Amino acid sequence: MHPALMALREHLGGIMDVRAAAALLEWDQETYMPPSAASVRAEQLSTLHRLAHEWFTSEKTGELLEAAAEVVRDWPADDLSVRLVRVVHEDYEKARRVPTKLVAELARTESQAREAWKQARAANRYDLFAPYLERLLVLQREKAAALGYPNHPYDALLDQYEPGMTTAEVQTLFEQLRKHLVPLLQALFEQPQPEDAFLRRYVEPDRQWTLNRRLLQALGFDLDRGRLDASVHPFSTGIAIADVRLTTRIHPNDFTSGLFATLHEAGHGLYEQGIDPALERTPLADGASLALHESQSRFWENVIGRGLPFWEYFYPQLQETLPDVLCDVPLEAFYRAINRVQPSLIRVEADEVTYNLHILLRFELEVALIEGSLSVQDLPIAWEEGMQRYLGLRPTTLRESVLQDIHWAQGAFGYFPTYTLGNLMAAQLFMALRTAFVELDDFVRQGTFFPILEWLRKHIHRYGRAWKAAVLLQWATGKPLQVEPWLQYVREKYQVLYPAASLAA
Amino acid sequence: MHPALMALREHLGGIMDVRAAAALLEWDQETYMPPSAASVRAEQLSTLHRLAHEWFTSEKTGELLEAAAEVVRDWPADDLSVRLVRVVHEDYEKARRVPTKLVAELARTESQAREAWKQARAANRYDLFAPYLERLLVLQREKAAALGYPNHPYDALLDQYEPGMTTAEVQTLFEQLRKHLVPLLQALFEQPQPEDAFLRRYVEPDRQWTLNRRLLQALGFDLDRGRLDASVHPFSTGIAIADVRLTTRIHPNDFTSGLFATLHEAGHGLYEQGIDPALERTPLADGASLALHESQSRFWENVIGRGLPFWEYFYPQLQETLPDVLCDVPLEAFYRAINRVQPSLIRVEADEVTYNLHILLRFELEVALIEGSLSVQDLPIAWEEGMQRYLGLRPTTLRESVLQDIHWAQGAFGYFPTYTLGNLMAAQLFMALRTAFVELDDFVRQGTFFPILEWLRKHIHRYGRAWKAAVLLQWATGKPLQVEPWLQYVREKYQVLYPAASLAA
Repeated sequence: MHPALMALREHLGGIMDVRAAAALLEWDQETYMPPSAASVRAEQLSTLHRLAHEWFTSEKTGELLEAAAEVVRDWPADDLSVRLVRVVHEDYEKARRVPTKLVAELARTESQAREAWKQARAANRYDLFAPYLERLLVLQREKAAALGYPNHPYDALLDQYEPGMTTAEVQTLFEQLRKHLVPLLQALFEQPQPEDAFLRRYVEPDRQWTLNRRLLQALGFDLDRGRLDASVHPFSTGIAIADVRLTTRIHPNDFTSGLFATLHEAGHGLYEQGIDPALERTPLADGASLALHESQSRFWENVIGRGLPFWEYFYPQLQETLPDVLCDVPLEAFYRAINRVQPSLIRVEADEVTYNLHILLRFELEVALIEGSLSVQDLPIAWEEGMQRYLGLRPTTLRESVLQDIHWAQGAFGYFPTYTLGNLMAAQLFMALRTAFVELDDFVRQGTFFPILEWLRKHIHRYGRAWKAAVLLQWATGKPLQVEPWLQYVREKYQVLYPAASLAA
Repeated sequence: MHPALMALREHLGGIMDVRAAAALLEWDQETYMPPSAASVRAEQLSTLHRLAHEWFTSEKTGELLEAAAEVVRDWPADDLSVRLVRVVHEDYEKARRVPTKLVAELARTESQAREAWKQARAANRYDLFAPYLERLLVLQREKAAALGYPNHPYDALLDQYEPGMTTAEVQTLFEQLRKHLVPLLQALFEQPQPEDAFLRRYVEPDRQWTLNRRLLQALGFDLDRGRLDASVHPFSTGIAIADVRLTTRIHPNDFTSGLFATLHEAGHGLYEQGIDPALERTPLADGASLALHESQSRFWENVIGRGLPFWEYFYPQLQETLPDVLCDVPLEAFYRAINRVQPSLIRVEADEVTYNLHILLRFELEVALIEGSLSVQDLPIAWEEGMQRYLGLRPTTLRESVLQDIHWAQGAFGYFPTYTLGNLMAAQLFMALRTAFVELDDFVRQGTFFPILEWLRKHIHRYGRAWKAAVLLQWATGKPLQVEPWLQYVREKYQVLYPAASLAA
């Protein structure tokens, strides 16, 4: 390797080591940390994040990038080193645009806002949180201005999570989605609901752990390069490509909650484990965007994991492991139960179809908040009206409306749309996979997941952040991101589940 | 707080945060890390250690120390801030004396030597390790020269682990010990040994965990500020005063191995948990020396934990928990079994009495290696002769002699004597405790450990590194470190266990 590239890799490697340490501290905080260590852990994390930020935004990084850029100037555009220099240069420019003072002010305000949100939620009092939200919005607009944007301040915020995507693009996609989704759901809501009380039957944690780990391994998650632990809120985190950690939740009276959480996190984990090992200890060793990351989790959790072929494979095993729990429940009844579609107030409890209306609403609201067309004061009413309009439900507490999600309280504006964009990407990848493998359903039915995983690795995973999500999706599926594949997926699946509903376009 | 002191605390706090992160990464490596992450973890740790070292040895630290020293100049000598400035200044001076190039060279050589040691051990070939040992000794002498020393290069190395103690002091203590210990052990070795086969009976890991955790809590270890996990080699580590982690080993056919490991690590852990919380995130939040730290682990493991009163308290609980295992074993038989004294070749498997002869030998050898009076080539013979002389045994493999311990392979010269110094300190503290509480044995017999813990906290723990071990020992016991208390402790205890042996001085 050329010395200039080696020097850059070495420098970035050190920064990634500090980020990895922070990631491990965060993982530990949710899994094994003794409760009394919370406040000292906050200090430790703040120091590591600050160090990594200062180190990355230092002049030194710029100099090393410049020297490396000189070396690779005439190299082919798809060379990994060329991509490394290009992507990290973009990161560097963006990171340097936000003044250190603003970074610190954001961190402080977000930390206060998070606490205020918790108290406001407990007391069901919006006035305890509103002043912080107001302040957060001012700072987010400042941040957007510092970062710069083509058309809308929200562009700059969205770009943090979904590099290269614009507000207008999301608005177009979401408007198409809304147009079809609202009538489709109205048709579904009129149908009688399948029985699902058996999903609340007691299953000992130990048996759940056995099932969850068996699933993980069946999908191809490598437990020599990763782990599965318990946490209150399931998550996945890449400490390194060779060290990817997932968590799940085990509720004795809701065993499918843990199973689907595991499938979801496995999707994230398989993505991170599939990144080219040559990218280890570089900033490219991560997902190309949050939506593409989410597409992987939703793919395994919903498209595969809530599909009939998957349960044709796994349900006999499940019944065998839990004979006392599921002996009287036929496969079809189980399949219907895990795919109930119904309006609900809480996003994280929503089914895969209605889920997207929750996101559409949050996206509309946060765009309006950022541009100032919606005031903090009017937010609760706008939320309630939106829920009424989309799902026909009216929240009665603030936990069910504006104080439902922690995202805004921790300054994550521009994050919400990535959930639905991920769902769309998952369906688009699924349709491409069906074209690549006509026998796709048979593979799943037999528990043969490796051709699917290999295809995803080849087209998506291995690149890490070397290319933007839109490029990878275009390469993998031959098309830019569209809503049609998802609508097709939903219509096909739910027409079978709810045959009396008229779901045609 | 004065701004200059605040600035110093803030600066040191950041450095301690990086050290804490490294400690967590090390803990994780031994407990939960996926096996394939070993090589990337080594990079992460190397970066964190380098960062902490560079940050601490920077000019900035010197400036902040100077400014703080100015502020506290006329403050009382026992003020915590005065101690902080004084101790950290000493650390800083010492850390700056070793050139960065030598630090890097040491790290590289130690890492290679560790690998060579593993291979040499597996192949029973000294020649695979000897060249690295040679190189390590050259570098250790360079390090000693850079650090400076009053009389002997070994002084400088010892000072890293046992600040302020000299080679001559250790030699004097160990010579006194040797003089009494060798004949004392000869008398013991002539005695018939008690039965101990029942210690190998099978005990399910789950029941062992229950017992180990119950013990920990009985001693006063706070599980809200710490944890107990499993690892191959038990250890304890302080991520923070509020986050102290212990590990133990669980062998189904050797349940007392885990119990004593837990008691040992609990001793370390109680020390760290007992440090004044005002010292959190400062370099004073640690034990005053390795020997004093070890005195706490040996105190709970041996002086208390292998004592008759302790088992009068715990044995009924043990029998109740393991009725199938211990119903036919009376307390006295159990007590004798866990206190068998016999010569052996492996240090870590030795009983509390012979253990010290292992240390005396290693100390003699490493002093001779450092000063050059013993060559690397002659080391194996010197080891074998020493074992013969002290314990009447002859090692037959290198794993039983020069390749037994990892310490030298990782550059830890000057470390070994702290084990025996710790034993001496533990006995001296015990005698002081007996004077403070005439009812000490009754406390233990009833499982009432808090007066003991309170006494240790008051006299030792709370100070952290604010004062040197010798000062704390003098304050706590009214005397400098001596061998008599330990000899008295051993004679009293083992005269009862082996009544036919003549152990009088």
